[in-house]
Amino acid sequence: MADSSSNAMWGGRFADGPDAIMEAINASIGFDRRMAAQDIAGSKAHAAMLASTGIVSDSDAAAMKEGLLTVLSEIEDGSFAFSAALEDIHMNVEARLKELIGAPAGRLHTGRSRNDQVATDFRLWVRDQLDAADAALIALMRALVSQAEAGADWVMPGFTHLQTAQPVTWGHHMMAYVEMLNRDLGRVRDARARMNECPLGAAALAGTSFPIDRDMTAAELGFDRPCANSLDAVSDRDFALEFLGMASICAMHLSRLAEELVIWSSAQFRFVTLSDRFSTGSSIMPQKKNPDAAELIRSKIGRIFGANVALTLVMKGLPLAYSKDMQEDKEQVFDAADNLMLALAAMEGMVRDMSANRAALEAAASAGFSTATDLADWLVRVLDMPFREAHHVTGALVAMAEGKGCDLPDLSLGDMQSVHGDISAEVFDVLGVHNSVASRTSYGGTAPEQVRRQVQRWQEILG
Amino acid sequence: MADSSSNAMWGGRFADGPDAIMEAINASIGFDRRMAAQDIAGSKAHAAMLASTGIVSDSDAAAMKEGLLTVLSEIEDGSFAFSAALEDIHMNVEARLKELIGAPAGRLHTGRSRNDQVATDFRLWVRDQLDAADAALIALMRALVSQAEAGADWVMPGFTHLQTAQPVTWGHHMMAYVEMLNRDLGRVRDARARMNECPLGAAALAGTSFPIDRDMTAAELGFDRPCANSLDAVSDRDFALEFLGMASICAMHLSRLAEELVIWSSAQFRFVTLSDRFSTGSSIMPQKKNPDAAELIRSKIGRIFGANVALTLVMKGLPLAYSKDMQEDKEQVFDAADNLMLALAAMEGMVRDMSANRAALEAAASAGFSTATDLADWLVRVLDMPFREAHHVTGALVAMAEGKGCDLPDLSLGDMQSVHGDISAEVFDVLGVHNSVASRTSYGGTAPEQVRRQVQRWQEILG
Amino acid sequence: MADSSSNAMWGGRFADGPDAIMEAINASIGFDRRMAAQDIAGSKAHAAMLASTGIVSDSDAAAMKEGLLTVLSEIEDGSFAFSAALEDIHMNVEARLKELIGAPAGRLHTGRSRNDQVATDFRLWVRDQLDAADAALIALMRALVSQAEAGADWVMPGFTHLQTAQPVTWGHHMMAYVEMLNRDLGRVRDARARMNECPLGAAALAGTSFPIDRDMTAAELGFDRPCANSLDAVSDRDFALEFLGMASICAMHLSRLAEELVIWSSAQFRFVTLSDRFSTGSSIMPQKKNPDAAELIRSKIGRIFGANVALTLVMKGLPLAYSKDMQEDKEQVFDAADNLMLALAAMEGMVRDMSANRAALEAAASAGFSTATDLADWLVRVLDMPFREAHHVTGALVAMAEGKGCDLPDLSLGDMQSVHGDISAEVFDVLGVHNSVASRTSYGGTAPEQVRRQVQRWQEILG
Amino acid sequence: MADSSSNAMWGGRFADGPDAIMEAINASIGFDRRMAAQDIAGSKAHAAMLASTGIVSDSDAAAMKEGLLTVLSEIEDGSFAFSAALEDIHMNVEARLKELIGAPAGRLHTGRSRNDQVATDFRLWVRDQLDAADAALIALMRALVSQAEAGADWVMPGFTHLQTAQPVTWGHHMMAYVEMLNRDLGRVRDARARMNECPLGAAALAGTSFPIDRDMTAAELGFDRPCANSLDAVSDRDFALEFLGMASICAMHLSRLAEELVIWSSAQFRFVTLSDRFSTGSSIMPQKKNPDAAELIRSKIGRIFGANVALTLVMKGLPLAYSKDMQEDKEQVFDAADNLMLALAAMEGMVRDMSANRAALEAAASAGFSTATDLADWLVRVLDMPFREAHHVTGALVAMAEGKGCDLPDLSLGDMQSVHGDISAEVFDVLGVHNSVASRTSYGGTAPEQVRRQVQRWQEILG
Repeated sequence: MADSSSNAMWGGRFADGPDAIMEAINASIGFDRRMAAQDIAGSKAHAAMLASTGIVSDSDAAAMKEGLLTVLSEIEDGSFAFSAALEDIHMNVEARLKELIGAPAGRLHTGRSRNDQVATDFRLWVRDQLDAADAALIALMRALVSQAEAGADWVMPGFTHLQTAQPVTWGHHMMAYVEMLNRDLGRVRDARARMNECPLGAAALAGTSFPIDRDMTAAELGFDRPCANSLDAVSDRDFALEFLGMASICAMHLSRLAEELVIWSSAQFRFVTLSDRFSTGSSIMPQKKNPDAAELIRSKIGRIFGANVALTLVMKGLPLAYSKDMQEDKEQVFDAADNLMLALAAMEGMVRDMSANRAALEAAASAGFSTATDLADWLVRVLDMPFREAHHVTGALVAMAEGKGCDLPDLSLGDMQSVHGDISAEVFDVLGVHNSVASRTSYGGTAPEQVRRQVQRWQEILG
Repeated sequence: MADSSSNAMWGGRFADGPDAIMEAINASIGFDRRMAAQDIAGSKAHAAMLASTGIVSDSDAAAMKEGLLTVLSEIEDGSFAFSAALEDIHMNVEARLKELIGAPAGRLHTGRSRNDQVATDFRLWVRDQLDAADAALIALMRALVSQAEAGADWVMPGFTHLQTAQPVTWGHHMMAYVEMLNRDLGRVRDARARMNECPLGAAALAGTSFPIDRDMTAAELGFDRPCANSLDAVSDRDFALEFLGMASICAMHLSRLAEELVIWSSAQFRFVTLSDRFSTGSSIMPQKKNPDAAELIRSKIGRIFGANVALTLVMKGLPLAYSKDMQEDKEQVFDAADNLMLALAAMEGMVRDMSANRAALEAAASAGFSTATDLADWLVRVLDMPFREAHHVTGALVAMAEGKGCDLPDLSLGDMQSVHGDISAEVFDVLGVHNSVASRTSYGGTAPEQVRRQVQRWQEILG
Repeated sequence: MADSSSNAMWGGRFADGPDAIMEAINASIGFDRRMAAQDIAGSKAHAAMLASTGIVSDSDAAAMKEGLLTVLSEIEDGSFAFSAALEDIHMNVEARLKELIGAPAGRLHTGRSRNDQVATDFRLWVRDQLDAADAALIALMRALVSQAEAGADWVMPGFTHLQTAQPVTWGHHMMAYVEMLNRDLGRVRDARARMNECPLGAAALAGTSFPIDRDMTAAELGFDRPCANSLDAVSDRDFALEFLGMASICAMHLSRLAEELVIWSSAQFRFVTLSDRFSTGSSIMPQKKNPDAAELIRSKIGRIFGANVALTLVMKGLPLAYSKDMQEDKEQVFDAADNLMLALAAMEGMVRDMSANRAALEAAASAGFSTATDLADWLVRVLDMPFREAHHVTGALVAMAEGKGCDLPDLSLGDMQSVHGDISAEVFDVLGVHNSVASRTSYGGTAPEQVRRQVQRWQEILG
Repeated sequence: MADSSSNAMWGGRFADGPDAIMEAINASIGFDRRMAAQDIAGSKAHAAMLASTGIVSDSDAAAMKEGLLTVLSEIEDGSFAFSAALEDIHMNVEARLKELIGAPAGRLHTGRSRNDQVATDFRLWVRDQLDAADAALIALMRALVSQAEAGADWVMPGFTHLQTAQPVTWGHHMMAYVEMLNRDLGRVRDARARMNECPLGAAALAGTSFPIDRDMTAAELGFDRPCANSLDAVSDRDFALEFLGMASICAMHLSRLAEELVIWSSAQFRFVTLSDRFSTGSSIMPQKKNPDAAELIRSKIGRIFGANVALTLVMKGLPLAYSKDMQEDKEQVFDAADNLMLALAAMEGMVRDMSANRAALEAAASAGFSTATDLADWLVRVLDMPFREAHHVTGALVAMAEGKGCDLPDLSLGDMQSVHGDISAEVFDVLGVHNSVASRTSYGGTAPEQVRRQVQRWQEILG
């Protein structure tokens, strides 16, 4: 066994023994100070309601309001002295309020408890993040729509298994991400509507005997209604989990686009050029451009989904109502929200700045007889050929082209007819990558006309 | 190094070498056969559309329809011979269809591809699960409302930190879970609305040049509209992830109730008695009743959230459009859905069957001077005493009761007034657990009148 | 759509546009400054090796060493000015070194790169954590052994399904956790041995053409040997994942003990009393004692395992060698390590401080005919009765005791013999909880003599 | 609300009501039958021990052994009739044994319980998987070493950020994975050594009063020793979690190699050609080769790590000793083990079959002035130029080469000297990719001589 002792532990990080350990594990002021503005907004609404219902006097309420505004300004200008001994943001604000206004400060806590207070603060904070995510998603969608508008008819390979399957357009590819992000936006808005209920007034867990007006505080804080069950109000963290679930799927979408940008930036693909602002280079290798921002965005799903796992583990099997375990909720959500917003902003910047390399895209799309499927479809559609025969004829024509070292559209009509006599000059309308994409006019297809329709639809929606 | 060889591997599970390995890792028919009904429904809709748009003849479409119905009945009656060599459900159905109807079978694949076909099948399957979850949630909510109605005024301890904090009612505790499950229900419905778009017609990834009518197939399959981008249509698995996210939060809720049932069933608590149907006993220890079903429900969050993690890992960083990685989506969702439904059904059965032990609940609620907070609140509310003083007076009265070996309501008015002269007989209206809960009449509070209001509201909603 | 604009995003958190975003997502100095000591230790070893191999002059090496010591002391005394523009700890140290010693600072980077440098720093940091975990585990094991020694023969219920199954001893229960933690200790040591290879000298990814001596730097830094493949050396993060895997299982063990402490502290169980230092109370409810520290320890598995998930997601599918994604590794490991150490220290303090309530434990163990199994076993063992018959006889005797309102050992021999004539007075040797536990003398069983043997074994091992 | 009713639930999957639900959630025979061989081995060892210690007669033990062998052969030849009503594999085996040998079957359960029995079975099963993983890892390492031996001096790009950073060799890249897999192998072996303790004899949780010989059963089953604490023996699932942790890191390694194979197989890279056995093609696009097996291997980390998450969630916060939750352990481990073995076997096959495209690798390595770093290093090493100046000179030479449309080695000595007069003809020894890799001779570097040294070392180790 290693030469170690209990002493070593206490002697190290927790030199002052049990009390230092308890403070380290128990105090939340190190992180919940980020909810100061929400805490004070909640207290202001509560004070106004207490006066309106006659629970406290108007003069007390006025003192509370003024005092709270002072505390807020002290926090905002950095002059507030946070104390770990006061454990959390609620106690820190309350203690300072008492210094400022004396006795009335004690009455502010009438008809509420730290349990409903922290639930309210945290909901307000998460709601702000949902609004920020809403704006950030729209900004990124706009950047993608701009790329799509510019390149509605630029041809590029459509991949399956990272192998060219069929030609598509740059605009079509960009718009696929708009659809994905729009689902994220839907999740943001559904989550916001579902969580917009106010816990304030649930008190410790059972409600209160004071004649409070929960509709009033709910309305004041922008909630749609008060929570309907006081036990649930203080023990619910669904809103945080649903935020993390939404953020996780969104981060997954970003990881896919980021992966594409990393691959497309490689010397082998050269499909896009990222701006210098979002990449780093080498002082001596002029062509090297490291897609740092794309890689970091790709990785953000790790900590965002990790937070989802963390909070799920915390909540698993917790009996009602409040357990201290739930204090672990905030740091996870704070970190996930910060990183989601950062990733969305960085992706927006990158998408706005990047240049598609049209020539490289088109060359890649044209390689590998990528319109063989179009030829087969034409044989079926126009000549009413059974699929199996159409594939046989197509295979023979591809082999012929390969033998001649050319692509399908480079074969002559005579060449074609030597394989199957019914082929007509019309066939050339679907060969070649531009013809191919133009022909895919089914709703949601890659034809430039379809892409432009979608671009226009989204420009109207996004404003 | 262990005595082992490459030979040992091939010689073991994969005795037939590379081909056996490739079949084992590549074939999906072992699990995707569960989507047979969805696959055939999709094909029927596609066939009808092909005829309606003139892409195939009416007689071909009629043959396809009849053949598909035959295949379905063969699968349903167990006579269908699935083949691993045919890899997946689509190929198995198609091959049998060809045996049954010949050439027209080949035309069924016009204007579609396996990529949009599997996306459609899987969406239909998940949509069915959302509907099943909807019904199962409602059934469980009803069971909880029944318990709440019966015990709207049964008093029990309201816990924080698993310590009695204040008395609440059995009905109030049951209704807290109704609120939680109602959020799950909201997520089920939001997810259903968001995912109800039809991928069929996206073809391999680019759309098609055949004049298909995507609105028609979408409507036929009960979708609200076709997916707007063909690349997204075949590469999107958000609907599966959102299902798993919803299921994970729901399973977390179930784990909390299950944990409570396990603790409440212990000899030390004896708050509830579970029925024999959902527990197991000991032949020689008559009081032992193992809450097996509750424990298993508590554990289900493991595999359900595990599936969420699994699919998130699979999707992370996948470039568009289809990659074979995505074949790993189904088994995870199948297992999570099966276990969610099982857990909901078992919980419903347990909740319906269980008996609350009123006497034990009330005795526990009354211990530990659990209405001391009510006394302090009364001093503030009625005597307008500052909080600090109210706490001081309460502490003195609790100490007096402890000294006498009685509870607070057992003190005489004289005892009370010896501590503070202004206390009046009215104070007894809030002491004792029944008075305590009756006083918490704020909206969403635990007062029986509030609980009954919520019960009635939910009975109307749930029908 | 919400009224929002791209402007809103830039105008908010990232007011200064793309450059601010790139700095925010790219710079690591905010967290990797925690590796300053490791970074400087690595540089000192590298400098000494460069001189020893003649790659730099002795005077340059001396200047480097002196300069590095100065930088370290500046960081330790808080006078070092970290710069976000310099991105990371390596550049910050290097820039300051250049200010201090001029030209020789530039030569320090000969034969190495930031890729092998950060890999070395991070390994050293993680290795320190493994050593800290080793000491903390031993300290906690000692605390448990102390509890076990004191209560080697205190009887308590042995639970399955949280139902009393058979009596066990307090000491036996404590020693179960010693076994668990010893496996954690084994994982710590295996992980340390496996990761103790030095990446320094792998350079960017390919090794170097300078005649460096990797054995020398490895030895200087306490590594067993240099990493054998330069590509692997810079792209490997197994050591971090293995640390997180070990920490996750350990945190799971702590969550189980914490859960027991929470349940055991409830008014219904009262098996233990936690010290005031690790719990919080209520000013007016004297019996309320919230097990805050236990709840927080129970929750720590969330963020620790969340970090494991996060890093696994980051590493999934990363091509060799270095990708910027890997910069996300450190914050996860830092947070997990901090919280593991905190949880271990808090648990040690709680275990040392807690008091078992012997009377409550014994009363609970005696309830519910908990020695019925012992009776049945005695019938089999001594009377050679078949199991089925032994269960039948036991059931009859339990029913008799239940009828008389007494426990099994309270029945008279006559009572017993009225059910089965062969029962002798010897049977009383196994009835009653003390006899029961004393009889379970199989190796590893709960008999006090067995528990004391294990206590002694562990005292010798732990020293 | 949807028109649904509780009826709908019962009427659907669980048509027979509560009993069907309880059987569905409670029975494990559907999956634990996979442990039949382990269960019977455990029973055989237990029977032999019971006779050896005189607890049962030799004739009873002989009957048990013969009966168990009959049961095993019935299971192996498929004639055994498993019954869900008998819940699990233990009861199924026991019931059949009773049919076969009558009374002695009842004595087999003397001194053990289902709790220690299932713990033993599962450990044996997991131990077999560790041995299988050991062999599979070695087989894959051999395949990689073979590739490395063939291509020890084939030059390819060494990537950072998927951008060419410096040339490396094919062999070096292959050997990086050998190092990774060797750490997996170390984890397999450490896990095996740590878990190789026998739970049998822990009985329900407290040990037993029968004079059993745990050393004997442990030895008979190949365990190193019996578990030292009976409570821990039945409640421990560390061995399963450690298996899953090892498997997760291994699957991560496989995902990285699989990602590289997918990228390398793209038309843009063409670094490798996969065999037809592990890919699928297109009948009409001859160059398309979908790397299906690589994609599926890349995805396997999802379900393997998902199982890790699932079991961690299950175990979180479980009080000692046995809880029914733990029944959820097996399916997760079974699925993870199956998929790990499949992924390892498929990767071995793919690596053995694949062909590196030397010309494409070398061309890619040579592009982008990839030896600019070598030039700068030469200037420092040979001319003793400060780094900053060396970078300046290199930049000027790269610009000159770019201007001339050639690579660095194509410049003349005169060209070079026009930028810096001290440059000598020796410089050409490090320019060009072959010279570059040959120069990186530091231990673990990419120089072919270093790679060959590692290949030889591993050939000796792997045999």
